[in-house]
Amino acid sequence: MMELDFTQWMAGVQAQVEDALSDFLPAAHLVPTKLHEAMRYTVLGGGKRVRPLLVYASGALFDADPQALARAACALEMIHAYSLVHDDMPCMDDDELRRGKPTVHVAYDEATALLVGDALQAQAFEVLASSDTLPPARLVGMLRLLAQAAGSSGMCGGQAIDLDSVGLSLTREQLERMHQLKTGALLRASVLLGALCGKDLNNAELEALGAYSKAVGLAFQVVDDILDATADSATLGKTAGKDAADNKPTYVSILGLDESKALAEQLRRDAHHALAPFGEQALRLRELADLIVQRKA
Amino acid sequence: MMELDFTQWMAGVQAQVEDALSDFLPAAHLVPTKLHEAMRYTVLGGGKRVRPLLVYASGALFDADPQALARAACALEMIHAYSLVHDDMPCMDDDELRRGKPTVHVAYDEATALLVGDALQAQAFEVLASSDTLPPARLVGMLRLLAQAAGSSGMCGGQAIDLDSVGLSLTREQLERMHQLKTGALLRASVLLGALCGKDLNNAELEALGAYSKAVGLAFQVVDDILDATADSATLGKTAGKDAADNKPTYVSILGLDESKALAEQLRRDAHHALAPFGEQALRLRELADLIVQRKA
Repeated sequence: MMELDFTQWMAGVQAQVEDALSDFLPAAHLVPTKLHEAMRYTVLGGGKRVRPLLVYASGALFDADPQALARAACALEMIHAYSLVHDDMPCMDDDELRRGKPTVHVAYDEATALLVGDALQAQAFEVLASSDTLPPARLVGMLRLLAQAAGSSGMCGGQAIDLDSVGLSLTREQLERMHQLKTGALLRASVLLGALCGKDLNNAELEALGAYSKAVGLAFQVVDDILDATADSATLGKTAGKDAADNKPTYVSILGLDESKALAEQLRRDAHHALAPFGEQALRLRELADLIVQRKA
Repeated sequence: MMELDFTQWMAGVQAQVEDALSDFLPAAHLVPTKLHEAMRYTVLGGGKRVRPLLVYASGALFDADPQALARAACALEMIHAYSLVHDDMPCMDDDELRRGKPTVHVAYDEATALLVGDALQAQAFEVLASSDTLPPARLVGMLRLLAQAAGSSGMCGGQAIDLDSVGLSLTREQLERMHQLKTGALLRASVLLGALCGKDLNNAELEALGAYSKAVGLAFQVVDDILDATADSATLGKTAGKDAADNKPTYVSILGLDESKALAEQLRRDAHHALAPFGEQALRLRELADLIVQRKA
């Protein structure tokens, strides 16, 4: 794969993941059809697939098994997709546009959105637990890691802190902590699960990949905040300026635009630095760090 | 344990499970504290613990490892508890009373109820995946089974069919199918996971336990419908007469009260019959079938 340029590699992974997601989601004609249709509406045909890209990029470090990578990538994307569906609901962010399409509770109804999220979380664990090309002991560890990243000490915990922070003025440290849970935990899980599709990790590898994930996760959020403040809704595929309108603390509101941009660039360099031990095999992870900082949407 | 009478055995399991749930839930002082408090409010100090009782009763068939049983029982109870929290939300059943306490969205708020459910589902998988006394290959199978029982081909699927059925006149077969998914799938998972804490299951054992689970699962729902039609809210710890008021199809509305009672009794006998191959070791499973049919709340 290394002979492909980054854009080709990325397009290839995205196409593979789209096919795998379609295979791993229940068919739309199966009962309950409305729920299954809505699950497919939620997951398929959109999104940057950042987490799957991280899985595959990290898998490239150790020539990981493609079947295991597909399952790990889809599990992470399903967890991410469910979190967006629930996050968009009226009792949370009350958003009507996501990935350029009406959100699930708008396209269907609130009860369906609730169930879509719940069912996608279960589906994520089923997809990963059905991997049959990995040593079972390692797979158990991967399932535990996914659960921790998704739960109250990870993504859900970050959402809860985010909710409690509306209207408060957070310090940069508090903001960082919130994002480390809300988006960082799942990005870290993507990097680790991708590598674990290849082999058991020693402490040095865990530490290096953890440092990379931390930098990329924060960079991702800093850039999100920059884009929310500067881009328009059509470009983003979701409502722009939403955070400011909701009075949510952001990097831009705390650091200003210029310092936020400098921080993103610093984090990109930190990410590259963390990958030094892996040499040439880390090409895709380096390119992804660049993409995450330089993206326009 | 066999020298205890059923009531003593049940009280012992319930106390053990309460302690284990408390251990396996994040402490209330950990950030995010409101989410963790609400998770503990949801799960602790109430409920009949039917699924944990089935886990332990089934574990008794093969002298299963107590640590594994505690994890499986708590995982199932967390999935069940999360489903109740989401089911009670305004966009679903909009219920204000559960287990004699205000529902989570009433005691806290809707966003917290949403996150409590999401986090509890993840916690369930983490608790089971952290079991270190079972062979990893068997544990992977158990995690897959839990995910299937919880997802769109299990509990969430049943919820979706239930939602789509409001105001429709279902046939008995359609009603049965809905309940087999909505409550039956998780009860079956309880019985199978309990047994799997003891050993790998052969096809004959899987079939016998499947038949027991199916009978007990349907009996549970038939009796629920009978109680909803005949008991008062104080006894039930939730709003009585809710199904009729919501125009939901029930066994009582389809079969009438007398035939529903006869059906429950027939299912109890079916459950006993399915356990014949297991002899004396199945005492607790038989007693649980009796309890499920003869309960008053």
